[in-house]
Amino acid sequence: MRTQVAIIGAGPSGLLLGALLHKAGIDAVVIEQRSADYVLGRIRAGVLEQVTVDLLEQAGVAERLHAEGLPHDGIELCFGGARHRIDMHALTGGKRVTVYGQTEVTRDLMQARSAAGLPTVYEAAQVTPHDFDGARPYVTYTAKDGSAQRVDCDFIAGCDGYHGVCRQSVPAVALTTFERVYPFGWLGVLSDTPPVSHELIYSNHERGFALCSMRSPTRSRYYVQCSLDDADAWSDAAFWDELRARLDPEAAESLVTGPSIEKSIAPLRSFVAEPMRFGRLLLAGDAAHIVPPTGAKGLNLATADVGYLAAAIGEHYAERSDAGIDAYSARCLRRVWRAERFSWWFTSLMHKFPETGAFGQRIQAAELDYLVHSVAASTALAENYVGLPLELPLQRG
Amino acid sequence: MRTQVAIIGAGPSGLLLGALLHKAGIDAVVIEQRSADYVLGRIRAGVLEQVTVDLLEQAGVAERLHAEGLPHDGIELCFGGARHRIDMHALTGGKRVTVYGQTEVTRDLMQARSAAGLPTVYEAAQVTPHDFDGARPYVTYTAKDGSAQRVDCDFIAGCDGYHGVCRQSVPAVALTTFERVYPFGWLGVLSDTPPVSHELIYSNHERGFALCSMRSPTRSRYYVQCSLDDADAWSDAAFWDELRARLDPEAAESLVTGPSIEKSIAPLRSFVAEPMRFGRLLLAGDAAHIVPPTGAKGLNLATADVGYLAAAIGEHYAERSDAGIDAYSARCLRRVWRAERFSWWFTSLMHKFPETGAFGQRIQAAELDYLVHSVAASTALAENYVGLPLELPLQRG
Repeated sequence: MRTQVAIIGAGPSGLLLGALLHKAGIDAVVIEQRSADYVLGRIRAGVLEQVTVDLLEQAGVAERLHAEGLPHDGIELCFGGARHRIDMHALTGGKRVTVYGQTEVTRDLMQARSAAGLPTVYEAAQVTPHDFDGARPYVTYTAKDGSAQRVDCDFIAGCDGYHGVCRQSVPAVALTTFERVYPFGWLGVLSDTPPVSHELIYSNHERGFALCSMRSPTRSRYYVQCSLDDADAWSDAAFWDELRARLDPEAAESLVTGPSIEKSIAPLRSFVAEPMRFGRLLLAGDAAHIVPPTGAKGLNLATADVGYLAAAIGEHYAERSDAGIDAYSARCLRRVWRAERFSWWFTSLMHKFPETGAFGQRIQAAELDYLVHSVAASTALAENYVGLPLELPLQRG
Repeated sequence: MRTQVAIIGAGPSGLLLGALLHKAGIDAVVIEQRSADYVLGRIRAGVLEQVTVDLLEQAGVAERLHAEGLPHDGIELCFGGARHRIDMHALTGGKRVTVYGQTEVTRDLMQARSAAGLPTVYEAAQVTPHDFDGARPYVTYTAKDGSAQRVDCDFIAGCDGYHGVCRQSVPAVALTTFERVYPFGWLGVLSDTPPVSHELIYSNHERGFALCSMRSPTRSRYYVQCSLDDADAWSDAAFWDELRARLDPEAAESLVTGPSIEKSIAPLRSFVAEPMRFGRLLLAGDAAHIVPPTGAKGLNLATADVGYLAAAIGEHYAERSDAGIDAYSARCLRRVWRAERFSWWFTSLMHKFPETGAFGQRIQAAELDYLVHSVAASTALAENYVGLPLELPLQRG
């Protein structure tokens, strides 16, 4: 098979890239090692920046998002037994985020791709990128029927996540990696209960962090900071008790509980691999970088990468210019590091870190007190939360 | 001897308190274990917030400060080989800081005290506060001539610094302390050379932090981050070479060097003791809290404490109300923790921390990049640097 762009990974990054390239008249094949049902079964983030919404619109898959997504103009920070609202909309001159599950984004992209008759290969085994440092890269895999397949292409897009084959195919000497592993996880519960508040609540509590989020007006998503070794120790009742203990009295009082639909512990990690381009292999999203979930930047960083990448590939074919391809890595990484910094900071501010002791707790309390009372500090939080603009200048001004 | 307020310590806090009380018609005796020359020989900070300038004006000792002090409207952050100015004056609606050595503040206060004929005891040995949990506290000491002395008073003000006797006289069970010790120091050099720039330069460099400061147009004060165990290893030439290596090319080129007048290594520490009042003993300044010098908050926090304390004692005598005394500790500590947070953050941003590794360095670089390009983030730095207002509300709004 021959295509212009071989996209490895059918998560939201790979599918969005496929949709944007299709709009630009560029052929692509998406190759995924898992089944479509498996991909749709992964529960992930649910807060979309405007940049992400814009890209989904550009890809023509924003109809259901606009019908069902929940625009959020603010978030609440809970500490010292009280909640303090950050009015993002007012602080950023009218920007907001949209609550809409990553699973729904993936479903919309999948259906649009299928409706347009675009090729997606699921359950591909031994997916391997080849010769991406030359002019004629290709991808091999074993199809579901056991046949050996080869896709020749101009570019390989590595949208296959942190554990994917693309980054692992790059010689170690060509990669520099940066990592911070946090000494705790997030225990998340999905339940068909009305959310405790119409906006997200981020809580800093002496028992640990908690987050009240949602997927819809009838489906809640809650998290509590937990140790990494007690995945099976949590009954639904124990989870609800722990969450309630970390909220302000009013929220604790009004919390509606119910059976969990999904319950799992996710580790928290900061990770960046540099660069993001190796000849004709270009990494996007989790394949190149991971953020801890505090601040909801993971999916949004991935879609921004894809936005840069689709533009760069479009420029290659339409204008016979590789300027965008050449600038891709530096352009992504500058924005990636901004979001890594924000996610690290917001994680550090909101969680309990036993190693920083009583001094660290007081510093958190002082920062939260300052943050909600300073317009400048609130604005800095708000402008990062709603998302920095896609077009950061490459050179420092 | 009988007085209204016995002030222990004749540094800037104790002397400023004495001056403010004198203006309010309240008697005080200042008791200092060192000689006047020793106190004047200590080289300390040199950046005054507007709050500090206002208090020195209120105390009637701002004449020379206004004649010789250098108003600064901005600072420069140096990283990645270039300098970026933070225009504090524009970002804070017209606030600035004044460069004027702590030694000069102390000298002005000392001379005003002497001119007014107010009692100051130097070289007092075995200074001890007594019975401050009752209604009749007193201080004992051994005078320079060997005689045993006793000063009966209504209040004891503990302005005797981190190593002073006042905090140490409080039963350990009544104190909660918070501490962070940083794994490096500042090697400081004072020299009669023109400053490399008319504003302060804070430099984040892979070799470590550097600061270009000054005391006057002809006297410079420079610092480089260093390890704590090499105090005697630094020749003047080695210091200048190290400083030059940590600056941008233009600053390095124009740096004028000369013999050091003073050269010493100071450790960096964050420390807070709570509460700051124990009956009729009230701590102020370094006796209760220490900040690392990044951001120049030490003296300014001390003068703010003294401002609250003078007002509270004034209220006690003029209005027969102890509301100010009762609120003193909480009022100070809220502002103290804000400054502790700022000083910790600015220290963390600008220094090299081997333990955070390559990830930590990239986070610093991303934060600096964000900081100088975001008006909100620049404003947050500026408003903290020029100093938060004295009157923070006690209750969270």
